Amino acid sequence: MKVLVIGGCGFIGSHVVDKCLQQGLSVRVMDTRPELYRPPLPGVDYVFHSLSDHHRLADTLSGVDAVVHLASTTVPSTSNLDPAADISGNLVPTVRLLEAMRASGTRKLVFFSSGGTVYGIPTKDPVPEDHPLNPISSYGIVKLAIEQYLRMEQQLHGLEFVALRPANIYGPRQAQVGLLGVIGTYLRKVAEDAPIEIWGDGSVVRDFVHVEDIADLCHRALISGASGSFNAGSGEGTSISQIVDIIGQTTGRTLEPVYKPGRNFDVPRVVLDIARAQATFGWQPAVPLRRGIGETWEWVKQHSEP
Amino acid sequence: MKVLVIGGCGFIGSHVVDKCLQQGLSVRVMDTRPELYRPPLPGVDYVFHSLSDHHRLADTLSGVDAVVHLASTTVPSTSNLDPAADISGNLVPTVRLLEAMRASGTRKLVFFSSGGTVYGIPTKDPVPEDHPLNPISSYGIVKLAIEQYLRMEQQLHGLEFVALRPANIYGPRQAQVGLLGVIGTYLRKVAEDAPIEIWGDGSVVRDFVHVEDIADLCHRALISGASGSFNAGSGEGTSISQIVDIIGQTTGRTLEPVYKPGRNFDVPRVVLDIARAQATFGWQPAVPLRRGIGETWEWVKQHSEP
Repeated sequence: MKVLVIGGCGFIGSHVVDKCLQQGLSVRVMDTRPELYRPPLPGVDYVFHSLSDHHRLADTLSGVDAVVHLASTTVPSTSNLDPAADISGNLVPTVRLLEAMRASGTRKLVFFSSGGTVYGIPTKDPVPEDHPLNPISSYGIVKLAIEQYLRMEQQLHGLEFVALRPANIYGPRQAQVGLLGVIGTYLRKVAEDAPIEIWGDGSVVRDFVHVEDIADLCHRALISGASGSFNAGSGEGTSISQIVDIIGQTTGRTLEPVYKPGRNFDVPRVVLDIARAQATFGWQPAVPLRRGIGETWEWVKQHSEP
Repeated sequence: MKVLVIGGCGFIGSHVVDKCLQQGLSVRVMDTRPELYRPPLPGVDYVFHSLSDHHRLADTLSGVDAVVHLASTTVPSTSNLDPAADISGNLVPTVRLLEAMRASGTRKLVFFSSGGTVYGIPTKDPVPEDHPLNPISSYGIVKLAIEQYLRMEQQLHGLEFVALRPANIYGPRQAQVGLLGVIGTYLRKVAEDAPIEIWGDGSVVRDFVHVEDIADLCHRALISGASGSFNAGSGEGTSISQIVDIIGQTTGRTLEPVYKPGRNFDVPRVVLDIARAQATFGWQPAVPLRRGIGETWEWVKQHSEP
């Protein structure tokens, strides 16, 4: 099986590529630039262009059996600054990708949606996939619209798709400068002896899941015949204050967070119900949070300027 | 109250304008061209530009208290031919409209969504607003994404909005050439002594509602303080074959329909549950189908080339 990983040089994408190679799949990566932290991997076929450059998609899809789509031009916290750009940069290129996949006969797609934004403010805890969908960020609205185009493509043209709705993913190779991912951001700050900032009072609860668990789930989704939307988290809630405590213990530093005003797009608590992914793919998150943070700290130390 | 009616020269828009004038509101119309069937109305302030021409929106919104947005560049049956154009032509300009309304302080919007496409294939009969949203046309996906941007604008910036999800609207001034609206299309064919075509076997059931009832509901939504999504139909189902029978009786002609293959985006039955709009706005559809078709036939005869 040959897999095209769109966004395969990014944080999550690079782990998906590792997992696919490990499992004996043939991998092509499409991205706008090489990996930040590693040289090109032997055996991977790299193609460098933007998803918006849809005229090149036919070539890039040639010989490909399945696609993993991780590309995004926005993050939740900035998407509301220019929703029109979010739509033009993410929704439009993805529907063009679906057209190109139909033309090339590529009938399998794993898409990275968003467990943290598509539900809006949760009314259930943990949040199952059939929770009402009331996003309060353009990021979440665009992810949902893409899921609906996937479902339509399935119903009208036989696409097999899995939309993964990940919680807060963390682990080695997460981008240094961080709007995404407090764990990586905080560890980097600690390595730089810089203060860590908390938006709000630290009571915000999220579901942190290790990137290797997500890569494992993505691979299982790729080789399965299942279609639909699936939460992808640890199923367990951890507050920002707890994260700060664990980081203090892991790094052996005394942390004195700077508290800043809460942000209107931060919902108070999101923990995902992952029973559907567990039952469908026989998947189980395997990396405990403390161990995952410890490994991430080792990686951050190796990749910090002294 | 000054109302801007975007798409106010179209079929539904022209009736909304009539209703608003009748109720003493001040009306500005924005459209790309004048009404097809009537001269400009006295007292109405016309502005001719596309919604995509967002640089002109600040001027067009000047002095406006509320907006009715009826513009669309696509119809359900053609939207899947080019979803990217559907998104760029409808979703992007509407989020730019929301930004312009925020800048101008216009905090009331009635948006025409779609009762026939947002639900996909109904699993309930009649279909309530909280039915699952699984559209199988780009038209429906874009309408839903717009509804979600409206809800977000309400939550983050205090917009009052009503998203109307109309059933199949019919009545005088419906466009002659018809992808939309079988009643208008069939009456026109009868006036031209041309055969009428049925896609499928005539068993497809829709909820037909008179345009004056919709204009009445739109006006009630404008002056109310309610926000949310509301079905807008008659609440009753009529098959295409029954429509053909009524048209035969109304026009006194013997009709011999030409049957053509069904279309994959036509869901078999859509009848809307209108209890929410009835309870919220004190609204009641008032034009019975036979009378409505009779009046529409009179209009079609007056506007046909002999």
